[in-house]
Amino acid sequence: MSKNVLVLPGDGIGPEIVTEARKVLELVNERHGMGLEINEALVGGAAIDATGVPLPEETLAAAKAADAILLGAVGGPKWDTNPDFAIRPEKGLLGIRSQLGLFGNLRPAILYPQLAHASTLKPEVVSGLDILIVRELTGGIYFGQPRGVREKEGGIREGFNTYVYDENEIRRIGRVAFEAARARDKRLCSVDKANVLEVTVLWREIMEELSKEYPDVELSHMYVDNAAMQLVRAPKQFDVMVTGNMFGDILSDAAAMLTGSIGMLPSASLDENGKGMYEPCHGSAPDIAGEGKANPLATILSVAMMLRYSLNEGEAADQIEAAVSKVLDQGLRTGDIMSEGMRQVSTAEMGDAVVAAL
Amino acid sequence: MSKNVLVLPGDGIGPEIVTEARKVLELVNERHGMGLEINEALVGGAAIDATGVPLPEETLAAAKAADAILLGAVGGPKWDTNPDFAIRPEKGLLGIRSQLGLFGNLRPAILYPQLAHASTLKPEVVSGLDILIVRELTGGIYFGQPRGVREKEGGIREGFNTYVYDENEIRRIGRVAFEAARARDKRLCSVDKANVLEVTVLWREIMEELSKEYPDVELSHMYVDNAAMQLVRAPKQFDVMVTGNMFGDILSDAAAMLTGSIGMLPSASLDENGKGMYEPCHGSAPDIAGEGKANPLATILSVAMMLRYSLNEGEAADQIEAAVSKVLDQGLRTGDIMSEGMRQVSTAEMGDAVVAAL
Ligand SMILES: CC(C)[C@H](C(=O)O)[C@@H](O)C(=O)O
Ligand SMILES: CC(C)[C@H](C(=O)O)[C@@H](O)C(=O)O
Repeated sequence: MSKNVLVLPGDGIGPEIVTEARKVLELVNERHGMGLEINEALVGGAAIDATGVPLPEETLAAAKAADAILLGAVGGPKWDTNPDFAIRPEKGLLGIRSQLGLFGNLRPAILYPQLAHASTLKPEVVSGLDILIVRELTGGIYFGQPRGVREKEGGIREGFNTYVYDENEIRRIGRVAFEAARARDKRLCSVDKANVLEVTVLWREIMEELSKEYPDVELSHMYVDNAAMQLVRAPKQFDVMVTGNMFGDILSDAAAMLTGSIGMLPSASLDENGKGMYEPCHGSAPDIAGEGKANPLATILSVAMMLRYSLNEGEAADQIEAAVSKVLDQGLRTGDIMSEGMRQVSTAEMGDAVVAAL
Repeated sequence: MSKNVLVLPGDGIGPEIVTEARKVLELVNERHGMGLEINEALVGGAAIDATGVPLPEETLAAAKAADAILLGAVGGPKWDTNPDFAIRPEKGLLGIRSQLGLFGNLRPAILYPQLAHASTLKPEVVSGLDILIVRELTGGIYFGQPRGVREKEGGIREGFNTYVYDENEIRRIGRVAFEAARARDKRLCSVDKANVLEVTVLWREIMEELSKEYPDVELSHMYVDNAAMQLVRAPKQFDVMVTGNMFGDILSDAAAMLTGSIGMLPSASLDENGKGMYEPCHGSAPDIAGEGKANPLATILSVAMMLRYSLNEGEAADQIEAAVSKVLDQGLRTGDIMSEGMRQVSTAEMGDAVVAAL
């Protein structure tokens, strides 16, 4: 039976970068005789405009039926002021993550040697940087109940959210992180705020418990404030980091920015069976949307991750990654990673160059 | 009536750095005829060892009676594994903040020109850096109820905390931040996660409302993940940042580390009447405690903040800051900020040098 990939362009630069990534996907599909069927659907602001909701029923059904999903990006100022909190582009993304049980978010922060200068950090601090952040994606304060805004005595309004994890949720993401560490440098740093938050005391306890099953992996713990500091001070001390949804959101963005080339970083969000959604780490960049300036490489590298993790096509994934490295060696750069002596190209030219390199 | 300063050395390097800061405080007290009465009390791990609790009644009473408080630092591995969550050093610190209503936490991240090389960031990215982070300190998820660990059906344990702010709490910290911005470059960036968390939707709304009272201050909003990223990418874009307790904990540590010299950064925690607790931004550094290696300058600069904000002795504060700058110009450095060609000194030598420069 042929496998099925759902493509969700989304908003802002989403459609442009996804167009380039599709070129790459279609080429390897044909060359390797994968017989993939590729469909598109609406999500985020684009879906709000067309249907009134950020995650239409058809999109959710198609996402459930797919073997893997490729997402561009969602969101933009056009929808930010929508007074109805349920009708925001982000709710489309959060809805897919949650409805499909995509709890395991892998966010690599890798410094490409060709782009070492792009970092705001000194070369000796970041050269060779290769961190994997494992973020829990379907629980924690993002989804905790109760939540909302209520009135107290005297009509004073109060906003509230609930940060909650049960042992099973923690164990599940913990295993993903320990397995990932086992396949890398065997060092796992679990990030929490166990000196203040009870929910993370449980987190730490379960990580300790799991570590007995992974005696070959060295487990350490770090408070989130210190982790943010250590990422700036000495990021190469980390191999794999594991943390909850909210801390992971913050730390993975900080870690990505250490490389100076967030336009290069893909991500995967996986369920228990390896089905996943793949997307660039960066956002929808509405300020440059439609101008052909966006860097499609993070999305193209997300295709590679998709082939490797969800479609069992590791060889094609390797080829795509090699092709990306090759175009960087050729000196091609989109605006975000441009530097002296290199050749600045558009989104489409970059996509075509990767296709050519393949 | 004479004013009254309570000194809380705390744990780790706390006693050492506080000893040096006291030398400085005693000198200016005498020279300027302030007639300050200076007392000491136990807090944190030191208090647990002596009395069984991190915040003894006498300490709390003395803190309430004081006009200002100088704190070293609390915490250490010795007490980290205490199974009773209420008997941890951090609870002493959190108890003082909360019982004294010290809701307004000011954390400057300033790069001293003499220490520009200490940053892990490129000089052009951080030279002249001067950010003030205003962190809410007595609310949010640090203190929200309900909280704890409970059993669900089937005996599955679940940890939970509550992130909550009411309009008055937000307005109160908002005013501190707008006032601070007004006295600086008149730019305030409020950090939230209003695309996901309802409590921060209310936060954003109140900040917008307040900004009508401060038409001379330019208000902007940023999601916390982007803020973490922008601090790494282009930190000089910020003047004053305001955020809640948890995000402020993370972002202020990241911002402090941008300077590369967290041993230089003081902080103030103020109540509604300007009474405050003053402490260095760094922690208790148990690994170097008792070795005379700690940098006392953040604590000495905390004394300067105390004189300025709580004791109305701005002139003495200016003199202390000038003296610190002078010892840096003289080339004196503790180990944490040491570089080639400078003279490495101990904690006490550094304190004595500031006294001499005064
Ligand atoms: C768009 C937003 C809801 C999302 C998140 O906070 O998870 C994004 O920042 C991310 O990290 O994927
Ligand atoms: C020690 C700890 C409870 C404290 C906090 O999280 O507030 C510290 O990290 C700080 O920032 O002052």
